[in-house]
Amino acid sequence: MKKKGLLLVISGPAGAGKGTVVGELVKDENVRLSISATTRAPRGQEQNGKEYYFLTKEEFEKSISEDGFFEYARYLDNYYGSPKKPVEQWRQEGRDVILEIDVQGCKKIKEQVGDCVSIFIMPPSLEVLEKRLRGRGTETEENIIKRMKRAEEELTLASGYDYVVINDSLEDCVDDVRAVIRAEKLRSERQY
Amino acid sequence: MKKKGLLLVISGPAGAGKGTVVGELVKDENVRLSISATTRAPRGQEQNGKEYYFLTKEEFEKSISEDGFFEYARYLDNYYGSPKKPVEQWRQEGRDVILEIDVQGCKKIKEQVGDCVSIFIMPPSLEVLEKRLRGRGTETEENIIKRMKRAEEELTLASGYDYVVINDSLEDCVDDVRAVIRAEKLRSERQY
Repeated sequence: MKKKGLLLVISGPAGAGKGTVVGELVKDENVRLSISATTRAPRGQEQNGKEYYFLTKEEFEKSISEDGFFEYARYLDNYYGSPKKPVEQWRQEGRDVILEIDVQGCKKIKEQVGDCVSIFIMPPSLEVLEKRLRGRGTETEENIIKRMKRAEEELTLASGYDYVVINDSLEDCVDDVRAVIRAEKLRSERQY
Repeated sequence: MKKKGLLLVISGPAGAGKGTVVGELVKDENVRLSISATTRAPRGQEQNGKEYYFLTKEEFEKSISEDGFFEYARYLDNYYGSPKKPVEQWRQEGRDVILEIDVQGCKKIKEQVGDCVSIFIMPPSLEVLEKRLRGRGTETEENIIKRMKRAEEELTLASGYDYVVINDSLEDCVDDVRAVIRAEKLRSERQY
């Protein structure tokens, strides 16, 4: 029997570089990114099962009633949620699954999955974070101010995570997360 | 200010390869092996501060009375103990310190050093362990039987350690311990 894979919950403020870090991690065949489900319509080239699982409102609500989501929310008349089934299936196959989720979502996952591992990706400083957000060239001034305020709030919650990894150099940060994955599998409570 | 180094307690049955693993780890400038103190006389080329700190009985007993040891024991009219002072000093300098110690000793350290990290080095199987002990060519049959019996007892205690690392390939085993060191430093309770 294969050893069950880990569930990694990764959070961090916008601009901390979560997406890039996760993109590196999933290059490993054995690491999968959990895909969210939504009732909003696909945009452009978006494919079902790639960017999102696209569900009808009825399908989504049926799944809610069957306890099919770790957490879900409704924004602007659409549902968004983290389906349990693919995560459990991958873990049973021995793959590690990453859930990229905000601080509130992480709390809900922790309540349900006692053995999940939570990692907070931290920018080296608020100055660097602001520089990165501006560097995107896609954010309005108003948005940047909003995001910076939210980031400041989020950083105070990092201590609630199991691990805090500073994303100064991408390579070091990815190696840090890989070390966490390797070490967590050696914890005796996972082996006995 | 430098971040305080870790205290790693490493145990495992004779023949599991602790010594070789530790020998690899201390090649890193930042990792130190704690040296025991003893009142027995130096043998052959043994040097004070290298194999042991050689103390007189009076010095050792003075240090006991000053709470200078994590743990100590008396065998065959000689004292053996793990002095606290060099460990604390190295940790303050930001170095990680390894204490190679038996299961009983590990318990005593854990009671005193709440943030220590305990690692149990496990042979891949009892068969391999016996093969390794015989391979040494220095153990009597009686000793091998005694050591094997003790190993069996010790293996049942591995679950009390924070991490259990199987020493199948030396390189993998050393990398496992390095991952534990790296990950432990990222734990949020060490950072906040």
